[in-house]
Amino acid sequence: MTEPSAVQVARSYFDAWSGGDFDAAMAYVDPDIECLAPAGPLRGADAFRAFMEPFSRIVTSARIVAIYGDDEQAVTIYDTATRPVADAPGAECVRVTGGRIGWMRIVFDRLPFEEARRAAAGG
Amino acid sequence: MTEPSAVQVARSYFDAWSGGDFDAAMAYVDPDIECLAPAGPLRGADAFRAFMEPFSRIVTSARIVAIYGDDEQAVTIYDTATRPVADAPGAECVRVTGGRIGWMRIVFDRLPFEEARRAAAGG
Repeated sequence: MTEPSAVQVARSYFDAWSGGDFDAAMAYVDPDIECLAPAGPLRGADAFRAFMEPFSRIVTSARIVAIYGDDEQAVTIYDTATRPVADAPGAECVRVTGGRIGWMRIVFDRLPFEEARRAAAGG
Repeated sequence: MTEPSAVQVARSYFDAWSGGDFDAAMAYVDPDIECLAPAGPLRGADAFRAFMEPFSRIVTSARIVAIYGDDEQAVTIYDTATRPVADAPGAECVRVTGGRIGWMRIVFDRLPFEEARRAAAGG
């Protein structure tokens, strides 16, 4: 069964970044992407990459829990393990036009990362 | 078009809790639910309600951004506004058996709630 096209893009994007190839991941990102990230909105591929690539570098494993969607929109829920935080799930809703993600809502819990930073800084 | 059954359950659960009727929401929750919440795993309807109902009480508005799934599993991504935090999106992946949610993975960002608590406590 062929997946709807936005799901294919969301999966390819996930496989690329979680596999450590952020250049390949960016091939699925629109140059003018609007990303609603936990810390606030980001605009454009450069801002998006500056936000997301550093996270991808601390991920030690990642797997998709669920992925669904249609030809315009997809949702991905995933588990990751990261160097500072063992259990760091995330969720993304993406809207896709012309094979690229033009809009993304990312949900993840920043609190354990903040706590890890504080602990590393000695409280 | 009829929605797949797990999507129907996820939507009915969302509509009930976001509409302020937590008793009605609990009708979609398995007594033995396993919930992977941001702070860790919860087991059983009582523990689940003790976690989720207080959150529902501080929500001032909520809307579904995207909901997808099949007859066994669904994913809901939603925006909420809450009294302490204006922009508090969440994501849930649920697995449904016999019309009830038996497994749930919830993703949301606890950091702004922690910051609001700290600010209310005077820093």
